[in-house]
Amino acid sequence: MNKLNDLQIIKSWKNNVKPWVEAIEQAQIPSRVEVTNQAIIDVVVACSPKTVMDVGCGEGWLTRALAHKGIDVLGVDVVPELLEAAKTKGGGRFKTIKYEDFSTKVPGEKFDVIVCNFSLLGKESVEHIFKEAHNIINDGGAFIVQTIHPVVACADEPYQDGWRAGSWAGFSEKFTDPAPWYLRTMQSWGALFTANGLVLEKVIEPVNPQTNMPASIIFVGRI
Amino acid sequence: MNKLNDLQIIKSWKNNVKPWVEAIEQAQIPSRVEVTNQAIIDVVVACSPKTVMDVGCGEGWLTRALAHKGIDVLGVDVVPELLEAAKTKGGGRFKTIKYEDFSTKVPGEKFDVIVCNFSLLGKESVEHIFKEAHNIINDGGAFIVQTIHPVVACADEPYQDGWRAGSWAGFSEKFTDPAPWYLRTMQSWGALFTANGLVLEKVIEPVNPQTNMPASIIFVGRI
Repeated sequence: MNKLNDLQIIKSWKNNVKPWVEAIEQAQIPSRVEVTNQAIIDVVVACSPKTVMDVGCGEGWLTRALAHKGIDVLGVDVVPELLEAAKTKGGGRFKTIKYEDFSTKVPGEKFDVIVCNFSLLGKESVEHIFKEAHNIINDGGAFIVQTIHPVVACADEPYQDGWRAGSWAGFSEKFTDPAPWYLRTMQSWGALFTANGLVLEKVIEPVNPQTNMPASIIFVGRI
Repeated sequence: MNKLNDLQIIKSWKNNVKPWVEAIEQAQIPSRVEVTNQAIIDVVVACSPKTVMDVGCGEGWLTRALAHKGIDVLGVDVVPELLEAAKTKGGGRFKTIKYEDFSTKVPGEKFDVIVCNFSLLGKESVEHIFKEAHNIINDGGAFIVQTIHPVVACADEPYQDGWRAGSWAGFSEKFTDPAPWYLRTMQSWGALFTANGLVLEKVIEPVNPQTNMPASIIFVGRI
């Protein structure tokens, strides 16, 4: 089994660039196509931002979607191969940045909205991003996180913060080496916002019409 | 089946005063005794209030528990028979108030904390309490709600706001006529705080060690 840590997440993604780019191009992930893609676009657009940073942008679909709405979007990711794919497709600006490197100087600009779409799946790396959020978000701006709904995803394991083994169940068989992820309870997500000076303004649960349960959870924090 | 509305909740409680007083006296409800009673006490005490209103206090166990800690507590409920039981046991002050009557003039005083422990189970009555909260809570005070965890309680029904039939499963057979309750999603609870000028400061999920899942959810809103 893969190690359960932040580094392994990056390693796994490096091993799955090609199938991931294909999965997005071919709309292979039903919950994204039917529910969560539009949900995150709607939440960002509702903030009427002029500038957005898409953290963990991957092959850049959300950066492109927001750029097409006339927003100035910077997509950042730690996996250069994913950013290569993003740059080829155009729309938005793209930069390779490690989550751990965010600071007052990196990326060197501030944004009205930071959005993290299923891209805050680690432990320390995520804590670092929350800690630096106020250095990167304009006054009155928003920090928006869409992630796995912890209560729905908890399954038969105890409902508590901790690493979980990843799975590509439901994905094409070209995927290997699933990335682990760190489950945070609703309580822990809420505390992460509050402890870092962000007011938890909204909690949104996009419901999947196939299952009638939340397909994800979206937190909107205000600085 | 019972009607699904706010009035039916009160009717049901009127029919179950005696078994309820007994259930609390005899510690018949394991999740309360093992998890949620202490959880709500801890959250209230952490706010260091001088004054508390316990809304929907029932037979008054929480009012008494907080009063014993030296807090000036007013317990209010709409069911006079429950308040009779509360007054007999002493500790705290008690008043009969209908949720719909809360206003700038009712109860006629303000509090550092309003706590609602499994007592906001209706629809319009709950909306009214949220609307009036700022008239009853001191500046900087807190509005604390412990309630059924909607994701855990959703079971096989669609995850959406709506009335649910009640159940006394797990209670003594002396209970009859279970009260209906209005399920609000996490999203809807959050919106209820925000729309009424309350900042959602904390979301707490007391985990039941028997099931390893949340036994309830506690929201702390700040005015």
